[in-house]
Amino acid sequence: MSGVWGNKIKLSIFGESHGKAIGIVINGIEPGVELDLDFINGEMERRAPGRTKYSTQRNEMDNFEIVSGFFEGKTTGTPLCAFIWNGNQHSKDYSNIKDFARPSHADYTGFVKYNGFNDYRGGGHFSGRLTAPLVFAGAIAKQILMKKNVVIGSHILSIKNKKEEYFDKVNIDREMLIALTKKEFPVMDDKKGEEMKETILDAKNNLDSVGGIIECCALNIPAGKGDPFFDSCESVLSHMLFSIPAVKGVEFGEGFNITNMMGSEANDSFYTEGGEVKTYSNNNGGILGGITSGMPLVFRVAVKPTASIYKAQNTINMRTMENEEISIKGRHDPCIVLRAVPVVEAAAALSILDII
Amino acid sequence: MSGVWGNKIKLSIFGESHGKAIGIVINGIEPGVELDLDFINGEMERRAPGRTKYSTQRNEMDNFEIVSGFFEGKTTGTPLCAFIWNGNQHSKDYSNIKDFARPSHADYTGFVKYNGFNDYRGGGHFSGRLTAPLVFAGAIAKQILMKKNVVIGSHILSIKNKKEEYFDKVNIDREMLIALTKKEFPVMDDKKGEEMKETILDAKNNLDSVGGIIECCALNIPAGKGDPFFDSCESVLSHMLFSIPAVKGVEFGEGFNITNMMGSEANDSFYTEGGEVKTYSNNNGGILGGITSGMPLVFRVAVKPTASIYKAQNTINMRTMENEEISIKGRHDPCIVLRAVPVVEAAAALSILDII
Amino acid sequence: MSGVWGNKIKLSIFGESHGKAIGIVINGIEPGVELDLDFINGEMERRAPGRTKYSTQRNEMDNFEIVSGFFEGKTTGTPLCAFIWNGNQHSKDYSNIKDFARPSHADYTGFVKYNGFNDYRGGGHFSGRLTAPLVFAGAIAKQILMKKNVVIGSHILSIKNKKEEYFDKVNIDREMLIALTKKEFPVMDDKKGEEMKETILDAKNNLDSVGGIIECCALNIPAGKGDPFFDSCESVLSHMLFSIPAVKGVEFGEGFNITNMMGSEANDSFYTEGGEVKTYSNNNGGILGGITSGMPLVFRVAVKPTASIYKAQNTINMRTMENEEISIKGRHDPCIVLRAVPVVEAAAALSILDII
Amino acid sequence: MSGVWGNKIKLSIFGESHGKAIGIVINGIEPGVELDLDFINGEMERRAPGRTKYSTQRNEMDNFEIVSGFFEGKTTGTPLCAFIWNGNQHSKDYSNIKDFARPSHADYTGFVKYNGFNDYRGGGHFSGRLTAPLVFAGAIAKQILMKKNVVIGSHILSIKNKKEEYFDKVNIDREMLIALTKKEFPVMDDKKGEEMKETILDAKNNLDSVGGIIECCALNIPAGKGDPFFDSCESVLSHMLFSIPAVKGVEFGEGFNITNMMGSEANDSFYTEGGEVKTYSNNNGGILGGITSGMPLVFRVAVKPTASIYKAQNTINMRTMENEEISIKGRHDPCIVLRAVPVVEAAAALSILDII
Repeated sequence: MSGVWGNKIKLSIFGESHGKAIGIVINGIEPGVELDLDFINGEMERRAPGRTKYSTQRNEMDNFEIVSGFFEGKTTGTPLCAFIWNGNQHSKDYSNIKDFARPSHADYTGFVKYNGFNDYRGGGHFSGRLTAPLVFAGAIAKQILMKKNVVIGSHILSIKNKKEEYFDKVNIDREMLIALTKKEFPVMDDKKGEEMKETILDAKNNLDSVGGIIECCALNIPAGKGDPFFDSCESVLSHMLFSIPAVKGVEFGEGFNITNMMGSEANDSFYTEGGEVKTYSNNNGGILGGITSGMPLVFRVAVKPTASIYKAQNTINMRTMENEEISIKGRHDPCIVLRAVPVVEAAAALSILDII
Repeated sequence: MSGVWGNKIKLSIFGESHGKAIGIVINGIEPGVELDLDFINGEMERRAPGRTKYSTQRNEMDNFEIVSGFFEGKTTGTPLCAFIWNGNQHSKDYSNIKDFARPSHADYTGFVKYNGFNDYRGGGHFSGRLTAPLVFAGAIAKQILMKKNVVIGSHILSIKNKKEEYFDKVNIDREMLIALTKKEFPVMDDKKGEEMKETILDAKNNLDSVGGIIECCALNIPAGKGDPFFDSCESVLSHMLFSIPAVKGVEFGEGFNITNMMGSEANDSFYTEGGEVKTYSNNNGGILGGITSGMPLVFRVAVKPTASIYKAQNTINMRTMENEEISIKGRHDPCIVLRAVPVVEAAAALSILDII
Repeated sequence: MSGVWGNKIKLSIFGESHGKAIGIVINGIEPGVELDLDFINGEMERRAPGRTKYSTQRNEMDNFEIVSGFFEGKTTGTPLCAFIWNGNQHSKDYSNIKDFARPSHADYTGFVKYNGFNDYRGGGHFSGRLTAPLVFAGAIAKQILMKKNVVIGSHILSIKNKKEEYFDKVNIDREMLIALTKKEFPVMDDKKGEEMKETILDAKNNLDSVGGIIECCALNIPAGKGDPFFDSCESVLSHMLFSIPAVKGVEFGEGFNITNMMGSEANDSFYTEGGEVKTYSNNNGGILGGITSGMPLVFRVAVKPTASIYKAQNTINMRTMENEEISIKGRHDPCIVLRAVPVVEAAAALSILDII
Repeated sequence: MSGVWGNKIKLSIFGESHGKAIGIVINGIEPGVELDLDFINGEMERRAPGRTKYSTQRNEMDNFEIVSGFFEGKTTGTPLCAFIWNGNQHSKDYSNIKDFARPSHADYTGFVKYNGFNDYRGGGHFSGRLTAPLVFAGAIAKQILMKKNVVIGSHILSIKNKKEEYFDKVNIDREMLIALTKKEFPVMDDKKGEEMKETILDAKNNLDSVGGIIECCALNIPAGKGDPFFDSCESVLSHMLFSIPAVKGVEFGEGFNITNMMGSEANDSFYTEGGEVKTYSNNNGGILGGITSGMPLVFRVAVKPTASIYKAQNTINMRTMENEEISIKGRHDPCIVLRAVPVVEAAAALSILDII
C-alpha cells in the first residue's frame, strides 16, 4: 500500500512536488515529548536544496507547520501532522516534456501504474521532495531516541570512485558521530572529502551526475530488539531505506564483503567485560538473527547518480509511443548523496523507533 | 511483529527446529488453483539438507502435509496451512552448550529478547529450518505466477572469491532461467561452478565455512506494479529477503556498483519497438521509482558464511556471564548458499505475488 | 493504533477541535476518478453545525481544501489529503473547566491515556468535529460506489421514544433512499418526524439532550464480498461505526430482535428468479457468514444523548482529584442524531469500498 | 483479509470442519508465561458439543496439541501454534445436499466468493467449529489477563423471550463472575435459567431452533486503554465479536436502550473516593471516547437461532439454479447460545489483551 508505513509508529505521507503542500501524519508518538523545533529546522536544512554548490540551486522552502498532535510545546500522543508548503515552483519547466519519460525516473512506471492520471510536474508524488516530510518525522524520532541515549550519524563513504575509510564498526566514537551530523560535507577525512567534492563539480561541469555510498551508524540500541521472521531489524530498516528514491543497495555490517571471508573470520566472537556483553569484531553490524546485539548498528546505502542530466538521452513519448530525444532542463543536483544523508538518518531513526 | 508478513497475501509462520512440527498458514490465495504437489516436493528437495556433499549430512524430513485450504486438488481460497513434521533430531547435541552463545548465531540476541524462555535446541525458532515452510509457500506462489507467465530463477554468482558472470540484465533467456532451477549446482558456467565447489570442500576440510552471492531474476512481471513511499518493489522484496537467516546485503540492478557510474552511463534510456517499451540497459534492475518497468527484475543477495563451525571460538556462558570457549559439534553445512537458492527464489515469488 | 484504518483503502485522520486544521489522508483510491466537489460540499453541509434549530448554533467552517492526490479534476491514485481549517473557536469557553472531566465525555479517559498532555480544548482529538474529515472521505467513497451502482441512504428510526417504521429490508426503493439523503430531517414518515423534532426541542428547552437510532441501507452490493474470520462485513462495518463518537450499539438485519424469533422464522429462505438469487426475508441484513448475499445491506446504530448538557452534574477535578460540580456552557447540540446521519453513511461507504 | 487479526497480538486461524485439522497461530505472546493446560481444556470443554441435552449430540474431539511457542511448560515468545484434530466426521451427511444453499448459512455466499471451490462439508471454513481455536487462544489470553487481575465472565441474558436481569453494571461481583464461568448453564437466576432450558427443549422437540443474548463483563481493566479514531475499545471488541458466526448485534453499556434516556440520565457522573475515580452509573459500559474508564466493561451480543433446522425450507440448487426444498439432517444444536458463551469470552479476552 502506498503512503503508509510502520507498526508501533505509523507514518502517512502525502503530496506532490508541485502541489500546494506535502506533509506527513505520524501516529503512535508518546505524549509529553518536548520538541526542539530548531533541531527539526536544522535537519530540514541539511536536506534542503540550494545550500551548497554541490547541490541544486533551486531554493525550495521547507518550512514546516505542525497542525496537530502538538500542544503547548509538547506532543499530545494523538496523530501529529505537519504540512510543508510548496513554493518557488517552475511548473512550466516540465510542461513541454510531460509526455516524455525521463530515463531512470518514475515517469514511465508511474504513467503505467496510474493510467496517466498522476501529477507529472516535477516528478509529482515520486519527487525527491517527498523526503522532506521523512526528515521532519525523523527529526522527531531522533529527539525521542536521544532521550534513550540512541545516537545516529553517518558519513559519505564514497562519491563515485573516491572513497574514504569505513567506520570502525567495533569502536565508533559517539562525539565523532554527532560531529558528523553537523558537518557541511560529512566525511571523516576532509582530504578525501575534497576529492569527492571535485568529483561532483566535474560531473556538474560535464552536464552529468554521480552517485555514492552513505554509511550510517546507530549507537546504544539495547540488545534484544527486533524479530525473527518477518520483521528482522534488517527487514524493517531496508524496507524504509529502499523507499528513498535512488537507493539501489542496502547492506549491514560487512555486507556483501562478508562473502569474501571464511566463517572463522566472519563470526563475531563474544566476550564479557564488566557485566557487558560485546563482540571482538562486528561483521554482522550489530544484528544477529534479526535482533540487535547491543553492538553499533552499521549499514550502508548505495545512492545512484542523479537521473536528471542535461546530456541528450534517448526516450519515448508515452502518449504517442514514438522514440524521441530528451535533454532535461531545469536546476538539478549533480549529486544527491549529500542531501540524502539526513534522509538516510531519518529512515534509520524512524525504523529504530518502531523496533525498540 | 514476529511471524506475520504480507498485504494481499499474508503469511503466518511457526515452529522450532526441535519441536514437533513447523509450518505456515497462507492467507489470500485465490480459489481454484490446481496445485502440483510434485513441484512443491521438488522445491522442498532443493532446500533439504543431506542432498549433496556440499551441504550438511543431516537428513531432515521435509515432508509437508496440507491440512486446510486445499480440497479435491485445488486451493479453496480459505487459509492454506501446511505442517512439516520434524524428525531425526539429535536434541542432545545441543544440551551441553545450551547456555553458550554460538558466535554469529541468534543465541545471545534471542536469549535477551525472550528472557531465556525460547527453545534453544538447534536454534529453535531462529533455525534455518524455518525456511522450509517459506519454500513450501514459495512453491505455491511460483505456480500461480507461472500461470501469469512470470518465471523466477537464479544462479550462484560467487562462493567466496570464486565468481562467475552476472546475468545479462537486458536479455535473460527464459529457458536458461528454468534450466538453472533444475541444476544441482546452479551456475551458468560449470567450470566456475567446479571452482566454487572446491572452495566449499576446502572450507569443510578446514572445519571452516564460506558464503557467497546469489543472483536472482524474475521475468515477465508487467510494468506498473509496486508503489512509491513506502512499499516500493525493492522495499517489499528486501523486507522478505532480509528475514532469511544469514542474508547481510541486498541490491537491485547494478546495486552498489551503480555508484561507480556516471549518470549518463547509469541511466536506462527508453525505446519502443513493436508497441513494447524497453530500455537499452537495465542498471535499475527492472524497477524505477519503486515500480516495475517490465524489464527483467534482477537482484543479488549476500549470504554470510555458515555461523556454525568446528573451529574453537571465544564466547560467553549467557547464564553465568563467564567467558568460555566453544567448538560446535554436530553436522553443519560448510556453506549454505546452495541450499539458500530456493529460499531466495521463494522469497521473490511471494513478494512478487504480493505486489502484482 | 490511533488514527489509521483500512485494508484496500487506508485512512489517516488528524487534528484537534481547536487546532489550526483537521484533515485526512486517503490511500488506495483508484486513479482517474472525476470528483464532484459540489457533492462533497453537500455532504459536509449535512454534517455541519448551525444548519437547523435541532442542532447547535455554532457556525463551524467546514471548508475543505484538497492538497494532494487530485490533479486536473481527477484523482491521481497517490495519497489524497484534505485539510479542513478550524475557525470560529471560542477557546476561552473551555479554559475554566479544563481540569473538570465532563461526564460521558472522553476528558477523563483521554487525560489518563495521554498523561494530561492532550489538547483539552473542545474535546481536542476526541471532538465530534473529527467526523468532518470522515464525511469528506465518505463523500469520495460514495462517488466511487455510485459508479458501481451502490447506493447508500438512511433514516432516523427514532429520537428517544418517538419511532417510525423500519426499512422494508427486502424491498427498499432506490429512489426513496436517495431522496432521504436530500431531506433536511430524513424520515420516511414526516408526521413521525415532527414528533421527533418536538422531542429534540423539548430536550433543548429543558437544558437536556436526547439520542436516537439511525437505520442505514446500502443497495446493490454484489454477492460474495467480505470474509469469514476475521474480516466479516459486520466486523469491518462495526469497527468503523464504533469509532464514531456516541455510538453504543450496532446491529445488522433484525439484530437483537432476531433472538425473539424461532429459527424457522429467522432463516432467510432462498429462491431464484430470472437468474437472480434472492431471499424471501432479509433478517440477516444482506450478510451471511460475514459475506454479502446481494440482498440490501441493512444495519442500525444507537447514538447516545449528547453528553454536553447545561444541567449541573457531579464530576471531579482531574488534577486536584476533588469532587466538583459542573454545568457545561457553550453551544451544544440538544441531539446529534441528525448530524450523525451523514457520518454513519460515510462510515458505511468507506467500509463497503474497503470490502468490495 | 480472511484469517488474520490483531495488532499487538496477531492471530492466524485455519482449517475446515471436515479437514484433517483446524488450528491457530498466536503471535505476540510474552515469553515465560506458565500455561495451565487443564484450564485450557476446561474452556474447550465449555464450547464442545455433546455435553448437555441443550446442545448437539455430535461428540467432536476438541483435543488440542501445542506444536510451537511452548517449551518446558512456558510460552517462548515465538509464534504459538496449536492444532485441533478433526474426527468423528460424518462427511456423507452433507454430500447429498452439497449444491443446496442451506438458508441463513454461508453456503451460498461462500459459493459465490470462492467460485465453488471451497470445502462444502459441514460448512467448511465457515463452520462454528472454527470457534474452537478461538477458545483455545482465548484461554491463553485469559490466563495472561488474570495475572493482571482482569477477570472475564458472562451470563445468558435471554433465550428467545425468556430473560433474566442485566448485570448491575456498577457493582459486579468478581466471585460471581468467576462462578458463572463454572456453571453448566450460566445464569444468575436459576429459575429463569430453567425457563430458558425449557424453551430450548421446546424448540428441539419442534425440530426448530432458538437464539438469545449473552451479556459479558470484564473487570479491573485499567483506565486509559484503547484509542480514539479508529481503534476504540468498542471497535476492537465488535470487530472480533462480529466474526463469530451467528452474531447479529453488539452493544456496550446500556446499548440501544441508551437512546431511550435523557442526557441527564444517560451521563455517567464522576466522583472520587479513596483516590479512585468512579462513576455513579455505568451506562457507557466502562468505555468513554473509545477508551476504558476503569469501570466494569460490559457488553451484550445477539446470537441468532441456529440456522440448521430439520423443518423443510425453500432453497436453491447453486449449480443448477433451480428452486428446491431442503430439510437439514444431521445432529444440530437447537440453540448455540450456551456453547457461544466461552467463545464470546474468548473474543473479549483476546481483544482486551490486544488493547491493554
